[in-house]
Amino acid sequence: MTTAIAITGACGRMGKMLVESVHTNKATSLAGALEHPGSNLIGNDAGEIAGVGRIGVPVLGDLSSIISRTEVIIDFSTPSATLANAQICADNGTPIVVGTTGFSDEEKQQLTELSSKIPMCIAANYSTGLNISLKLLELAAKAVDEDVDIEIVEAHHRHKVDAPSGTALAMGETIAKARNLDFKEFALFAREGITGARRKDTIGFSTVRGGDVVGDHTVMFMADGERLEVTHKASNRMAFAHGAVRAATWLVKKEPGVYDMQDVLGLS
Amino acid sequence: MTTAIAITGACGRMGKMLVESVHTNKATSLAGALEHPGSNLIGNDAGEIAGVGRIGVPVLGDLSSIISRTEVIIDFSTPSATLANAQICADNGTPIVVGTTGFSDEEKQQLTELSSKIPMCIAANYSTGLNISLKLLELAAKAVDEDVDIEIVEAHHRHKVDAPSGTALAMGETIAKARNLDFKEFALFAREGITGARRKDTIGFSTVRGGDVVGDHTVMFMADGERLEVTHKASNRMAFAHGAVRAATWLVKKEPGVYDMQDVLGLS
Amino acid sequence: MTTAIAITGACGRMGKMLVESVHTNKATSLAGALEHPGSNLIGNDAGEIAGVGRIGVPVLGDLSSIISRTEVIIDFSTPSATLANAQICADNGTPIVVGTTGFSDEEKQQLTELSSKIPMCIAANYSTGLNISLKLLELAAKAVDEDVDIEIVEAHHRHKVDAPSGTALAMGETIAKARNLDFKEFALFAREGITGARRKDTIGFSTVRGGDVVGDHTVMFMADGERLEVTHKASNRMAFAHGAVRAATWLVKKEPGVYDMQDVLGLS
Amino acid sequence: MTTAIAITGACGRMGKMLVESVHTNKATSLAGALEHPGSNLIGNDAGEIAGVGRIGVPVLGDLSSIISRTEVIIDFSTPSATLANAQICADNGTPIVVGTTGFSDEEKQQLTELSSKIPMCIAANYSTGLNISLKLLELAAKAVDEDVDIEIVEAHHRHKVDAPSGTALAMGETIAKARNLDFKEFALFAREGITGARRKDTIGFSTVRGGDVVGDHTVMFMADGERLEVTHKASNRMAFAHGAVRAATWLVKKEPGVYDMQDVLGLS
Repeated sequence: MTTAIAITGACGRMGKMLVESVHTNKATSLAGALEHPGSNLIGNDAGEIAGVGRIGVPVLGDLSSIISRTEVIIDFSTPSATLANAQICADNGTPIVVGTTGFSDEEKQQLTELSSKIPMCIAANYSTGLNISLKLLELAAKAVDEDVDIEIVEAHHRHKVDAPSGTALAMGETIAKARNLDFKEFALFAREGITGARRKDTIGFSTVRGGDVVGDHTVMFMADGERLEVTHKASNRMAFAHGAVRAATWLVKKEPGVYDMQDVLGLS
Repeated sequence: MTTAIAITGACGRMGKMLVESVHTNKATSLAGALEHPGSNLIGNDAGEIAGVGRIGVPVLGDLSSIISRTEVIIDFSTPSATLANAQICADNGTPIVVGTTGFSDEEKQQLTELSSKIPMCIAANYSTGLNISLKLLELAAKAVDEDVDIEIVEAHHRHKVDAPSGTALAMGETIAKARNLDFKEFALFAREGITGARRKDTIGFSTVRGGDVVGDHTVMFMADGERLEVTHKASNRMAFAHGAVRAATWLVKKEPGVYDMQDVLGLS
Repeated sequence: MTTAIAITGACGRMGKMLVESVHTNKATSLAGALEHPGSNLIGNDAGEIAGVGRIGVPVLGDLSSIISRTEVIIDFSTPSATLANAQICADNGTPIVVGTTGFSDEEKQQLTELSSKIPMCIAANYSTGLNISLKLLELAAKAVDEDVDIEIVEAHHRHKVDAPSGTALAMGETIAKARNLDFKEFALFAREGITGARRKDTIGFSTVRGGDVVGDHTVMFMADGERLEVTHKASNRMAFAHGAVRAATWLVKKEPGVYDMQDVLGLS
Repeated sequence: MTTAIAITGACGRMGKMLVESVHTNKATSLAGALEHPGSNLIGNDAGEIAGVGRIGVPVLGDLSSIISRTEVIIDFSTPSATLANAQICADNGTPIVVGTTGFSDEEKQQLTELSSKIPMCIAANYSTGLNISLKLLELAAKAVDEDVDIEIVEAHHRHKVDAPSGTALAMGETIAKARNLDFKEFALFAREGITGARRKDTIGFSTVRGGDVVGDHTVMFMADGERLEVTHKASNRMAFAHGAVRAATWLVKKEPGVYDMQDVLGLS
């Protein structure tokens, strides 16, 4: 038996990837594809829009119409749309995977209340590899020798406007927390000129920008005589879709409550 | 207070590194340096032999003569010498870190019996980074998607006569065990010609040989859209000495019994 | 002034990338988009088919109808189609970039004859980076110490059925030629078990297969105390399109004759 | 026949490596080992001091005494000592390999005058791999597409006090020159916070500091769809000794004049 999944925002960039991921995954089937009711794509075949050919699932404007044959929803949309969808899910006892970001504190509170009725997975990043990386970094940061030097090198495409990446910062914060260090005190974002010898406990960041790199991150634990590295390389956004679908198949067996990707992966 | 450590085989390649590591580590002091009684280096200064300058610790031929002022022994020698030293340690209640390999089953049994009286750390490889790598691999192998492709690439110097390295095999076995796969069935050691598409669950090995590479290992978990890698690079054998000294300082606070490097690092 | 380029096979996978590359390159404009006369895509907008939006260039079935306003043709098709197109180009004095492979000796001879009238660029691989890599490898192979160890590591997606890759073999052949070594004698494609120490002058190959890797190649020149590496990573096939477009803009200024990508890049 | 080489400063760190390199190279023999006349190591065996065992070559204080049986001198010392040695070489028609740095303009002028009588190789860095790297970078920088993004990442041990490394800067300058760009205008040494999209033609530098890394440098040429990288990794200083010995064996066949390592490697 496959898990019947409905996708909201099914004609957006992430939605199309989710449709493709659900369609190609042997353990899942597409129970429904939703867009906002005013979309001019309503009625089109969701597979054709996703670029995987006709699959016989039309894009619909109303989640309620398909909720009864849906085991779990995946929702990467906007806070207000997600809240409305989560309410429908709660009314029908349907689990929901939430990839939307940017919730206000009040909206988070509303989500939490709904989670008393249904299982809900909420994560800012559904990449399996990245979530595992963070766990490996936490474990390594605790186990390495006290005097190890830690450096984080990240590379992204030429259009990225900030440095270091949010993921690199999250990695650094995970490491600092595991080593009981104040991240803000020990993070070092630039080196130039006469810097002096490396300060103990510093977490150094290096930023590479160029070409069309989707996102590479390497964390180095450097000691005398050896080096341990954890590297994550994203080559396309399909990794996020696969992770969300994995979360969906995991979520259908759970009790009501809020879960995150670490729970899905058995890492918490 | 520093931990007072005695080193056996102090004039051998590993012994000299241990002497240097104990001497330069602020948390440890060299309580004694031993060689077999017939060595013509008896009486020389252990620091001069290790290349760190005179440190006032003469090489001696008899462990008993310094056992009373020693908190812990580090022994990288031969099975018979290690057993004799472990007996002296047991008689004096002194913990022992054992880096010797090649014990027979009977010798292992004798060691285990002695461990009822003293804490004993036994490991084939004391590199901190390598031991952490194995733990990261176990964790990652359990958490990644089922359809991930796993590849292990290792590089060593031109004089190495076997392939893949023992460490690469250990990594592969750790991964197979974590994924409940029969290692012998799924390990793939060579690809050449028309191989066909990659077989699911295979653990591929690649071997690079050249120059003076001490030992590089990279394990790749390759999925659609992302890749997770764990890399260990050894640049010199001092990494093993540092790990053994770390084990020694940890062992002095323990109850009698047998421990390994995973215990020392808090990973077990 | 932009270079006016026509694309044959404009609705195929490579043709669509060429349309996009010509359209987005500020130094070029799309003079025409061709398909075989029986294609049911004739008449559609070439930009819409390529996924870059309407550009006002319809797909046509007859090269002759647009040859007068075309400065150069890019042709990635089949040997027979390419020969027919090259004849039209020769009749009109229009340069042609040929990315087609699989010509018979007789077909090659016919192309060569046509090149007496027009400039013609023929290459099996138009990736700029790869062509530069081959030149770097040739130069490095001649300059490194005689006793250096050379290893080639390549990685491709899980669906690739042969090993090592054709590109890895081309790299090895380039290196062997530069060092005056017989490639077949010194190429080593697999290591397993007790291999003995590395044989001098061997070119070792390692193959990694997994995930969706488009194509990574690293060549290592390994000596005592240092290592030199040349790496090429392809992330998508657009690199081939960009290279062919670069060849086209270069070719319009040349005398009749046969050129290759090394000529375009100024490396020959 | 082997090339008979004398080493000055034979008991210093570089001198000992040169003695070992000459001794282990089958194409060379150690004609003499020199130290300043007041050294208390005069009379000791040069091989024992270098750690390669007795080789029957005593350390002497006077270059003149062995110049007649020496085919070429390797001199890594101080400007004044090098000038005195170069004068003796010029008087005897003996070529000299100079690894000394820090000459004043006047001293350089004196060396140049002496080179009218003897072949002289002068270089700041004798690593074969690094010199080849610079040539590869020059060639690649000229051949890559105009809109490629160039990034240089370097890693060194925790004790290094400046950033980026002199070698990274030399690489950047080589690239800027090859692309006719003003290095000072386009070099970018740090990124932090909201940087905006990458500026075209910039050469980005990233600095990693930690552990005991001798020196790693990677230059990336990043384009849409592909990446070309040139990497040099130094693992110990023996690479410099080997390069100087290679220069010595090359120099003995040359006419008087000044040469550098690019000449030795056939790259100029």
